[in-house]
Amino acid sequence: MRKYISEGIGTFSLVFCGTGAMTVNEVTGGDVTHVGIAITWGLIVMAMIYAFGEISGAHFNPAVTIAFAYAKKFKWKEVPKYIIAQCFGAIVASAILLFLFPESEFLGGTLPTVDSLRAFVLELLLTYFLMVVIINVSTGSKEIGTMAGIAIGGVVLLEAMFAGPITKASMNPARSLGPALLSGHWEHQWLYFTAPIIGALLAVLTCKIVKSDNCCDNC
Amino acid sequence: MRKYISEGIGTFSLVFCGTGAMTVNEVTGGDVTHVGIAITWGLIVMAMIYAFGEISGAHFNPAVTIAFAYAKKFKWKEVPKYIIAQCFGAIVASAILLFLFPESEFLGGTLPTVDSLRAFVLELLLTYFLMVVIINVSTGSKEIGTMAGIAIGGVVLLEAMFAGPITKASMNPARSLGPALLSGHWEHQWLYFTAPIIGALLAVLTCKIVKSDNCCDNC
Amino acid sequence: MRKYISEGIGTFSLVFCGTGAMTVNEVTGGDVTHVGIAITWGLIVMAMIYAFGEISGAHFNPAVTIAFAYAKKFKWKEVPKYIIAQCFGAIVASAILLFLFPESEFLGGTLPTVDSLRAFVLELLLTYFLMVVIINVSTGSKEIGTMAGIAIGGVVLLEAMFAGPITKASMNPARSLGPALLSGHWEHQWLYFTAPIIGALLAVLTCKIVKSDNCCDNC
Amino acid sequence: MRKYISEGIGTFSLVFCGTGAMTVNEVTGGDVTHVGIAITWGLIVMAMIYAFGEISGAHFNPAVTIAFAYAKKFKWKEVPKYIIAQCFGAIVASAILLFLFPESEFLGGTLPTVDSLRAFVLELLLTYFLMVVIINVSTGSKEIGTMAGIAIGGVVLLEAMFAGPITKASMNPARSLGPALLSGHWEHQWLYFTAPIIGALLAVLTCKIVKSDNCCDNC
Repeated sequence: MRKYISEGIGTFSLVFCGTGAMTVNEVTGGDVTHVGIAITWGLIVMAMIYAFGEISGAHFNPAVTIAFAYAKKFKWKEVPKYIIAQCFGAIVASAILLFLFPESEFLGGTLPTVDSLRAFVLELLLTYFLMVVIINVSTGSKEIGTMAGIAIGGVVLLEAMFAGPITKASMNPARSLGPALLSGHWEHQWLYFTAPIIGALLAVLTCKIVKSDNCCDNC
Repeated sequence: MRKYISEGIGTFSLVFCGTGAMTVNEVTGGDVTHVGIAITWGLIVMAMIYAFGEISGAHFNPAVTIAFAYAKKFKWKEVPKYIIAQCFGAIVASAILLFLFPESEFLGGTLPTVDSLRAFVLELLLTYFLMVVIINVSTGSKEIGTMAGIAIGGVVLLEAMFAGPITKASMNPARSLGPALLSGHWEHQWLYFTAPIIGALLAVLTCKIVKSDNCCDNC
Repeated sequence: MRKYISEGIGTFSLVFCGTGAMTVNEVTGGDVTHVGIAITWGLIVMAMIYAFGEISGAHFNPAVTIAFAYAKKFKWKEVPKYIIAQCFGAIVASAILLFLFPESEFLGGTLPTVDSLRAFVLELLLTYFLMVVIINVSTGSKEIGTMAGIAIGGVVLLEAMFAGPITKASMNPARSLGPALLSGHWEHQWLYFTAPIIGALLAVLTCKIVKSDNCCDNC
Repeated sequence: MRKYISEGIGTFSLVFCGTGAMTVNEVTGGDVTHVGIAITWGLIVMAMIYAFGEISGAHFNPAVTIAFAYAKKFKWKEVPKYIIAQCFGAIVASAILLFLFPESEFLGGTLPTVDSLRAFVLELLLTYFLMVVIINVSTGSKEIGTMAGIAIGGVVLLEAMFAGPITKASMNPARSLGPALLSGHWEHQWLYFTAPIIGALLAVLTCKIVKSDNCCDNC
């Protein structure tokens, strides 16, 4: 049970702070700035990894959880429970943001500024880079180790920085679900539910090719 | 005695640099920028944790000290001494800033830009996230360990970044007291003295639920 | 084979994200900002070092590979294979960016804003600083160790920050090759293929003077 | 001899990159931005500490060298040699910047925007904070240890961020000497040669009070 609560609180924290930064930026007319939003995303992921890495593994992301299961580092039967906890945390975060900032239209939701195909390819690649780093710095399915938080938080920060203006750099179906549900903006959301999962699975595939011995501990 | 001097110097340093950044930004018409202010807050917290973590535990914050006592990781009888040292450091910092920048009206004080209820909820949540990270990366009541400074400084940085435009992201009654006293702006200060303490206590409660074995060493 | 795939994927990732930041900034009219571009470069280098340092040494740069060989820490016969993998990764990155952003003219290519001589001297010095740090924090020819990624990523970040407006801070022939090939802008590219290699070799020379015992393990 | 070369190269690197950022910002009309300049200063200090900490202790600053001697952690007879190496590195850096950017008027020199008394007090406090962190995270007179570079680089970054608009946040007589000599701007330079040394000595005094056992290994 501790694991699911940790995943829920962690995902709640990162969606609240990350989409909160986007929401505050929206309602204040740009006070946080794009650079500030990207820094917020990266650091909250880093902080939550150091806080909860030992307990739940600090996935906070259905695509990461599925990829770890596909890599045989995580039990498939745990996957639905993790995903429910993650989505629950994300939805609560968006609900509180709606209470605090009812004037916000998007609540930090993910909407692409290019056509769906290009947005799909970009989100897939973003999650691929993220998962390549995660799987190489994790121990089993846990994002622990001295530098895990900095490396993974750093990837989230840089991807939010450079790809944010194009797709908002979701890389995470739960992170996209919360704002979509509470703001009612469902356009193009299918791509945020599929591209991250495919990108994360491709990263595991790469890992199996590059270092079959280390990548799959239980293969 | 070394502990109290450390808490005093540490809180002096972080209030001087953090509210100093806001004061310089005010008197120069925005030269530091909002992003620069948030970075200043996060890094001075990080640096002071690495400097004083081993000596006093590097609380620098009455809400954190009270929460550690509530978690039974810190002696209640030490709490008033720590809080006095923290408040003394913060007041001296604001006094020197007033000497250096007498033209500043706010001296980096915390004033919300939304109504009190929403500011209260946001400050409570900010301190909740902060304390969740602190209690998970600390050893006993000391913010030590390789990554403690980076994780805690990172949370302060990101919360100042995204919530600064709304509540100035105090999370710390001592940090709000100094500028309020020296600038004479006491409006809404009650919320900065209550919300952080409640938020920090809720984090300890969560911790007791999630990992009762680790959270309370002396329970 | 694992080493070459790692070098290829790592260089692909850093050229995709780094020049991607410049490309997105170009097509959106400045949304990423100069500060955001520099942060992207530094963090993707850091993340890829933590991901692939143990496997290939995380060079991702022909100048670094040649310098390690010159320092007798890396076999000369491996050099061409590493360089081919690095250039292949960079070219694929630029090709995908061309598909995603066909409206971009430069694809993040390196073009100096000063005359060639001054650009040459600056690129040489930038790579000198980079290689001085790399050779001092590496173990043999591998960029591993707790702080290697932070130190090396930090240098890339700061050099992109301060020298980006002058030469785009390439420091890496493969990184310059990809955008040059796909965008067709070959002006001044000779300096990006020569200055980094000379700068990196000078760093090895310095290292041999300063600490002959540590610098050349196999001398 | 290795120590002096390391101090020279380290100080050369940090003055070249740090004042280079200010110079590039001047000649491009603000492309680097104030935030970018502060980040450049912090990261080059961090990187050079990881590169040279083991060899020379990575002082790069006459005020730090004198303070370590006053703390009885460093031999007084070494002090002049270190200071000469530091000043030589700084002057070479400014000379190369003058060659690269002859159109620059200040070459990143330190000039206060407030009266001398307030600038003096601020520079004294900035160096005090810096030395408090340095002495607490160093081992003997060497800035080594996993987090030393991050903590010290972080302080430099944040102080350049918040105090840069007022005094340029020198904290370092050698760093002020180079641009003053090459640009010919000597106004107010006396305060940059005295305040940092006094501030650093006060930090050692504090340290002797707070932890007499750890601060002076050879007392």
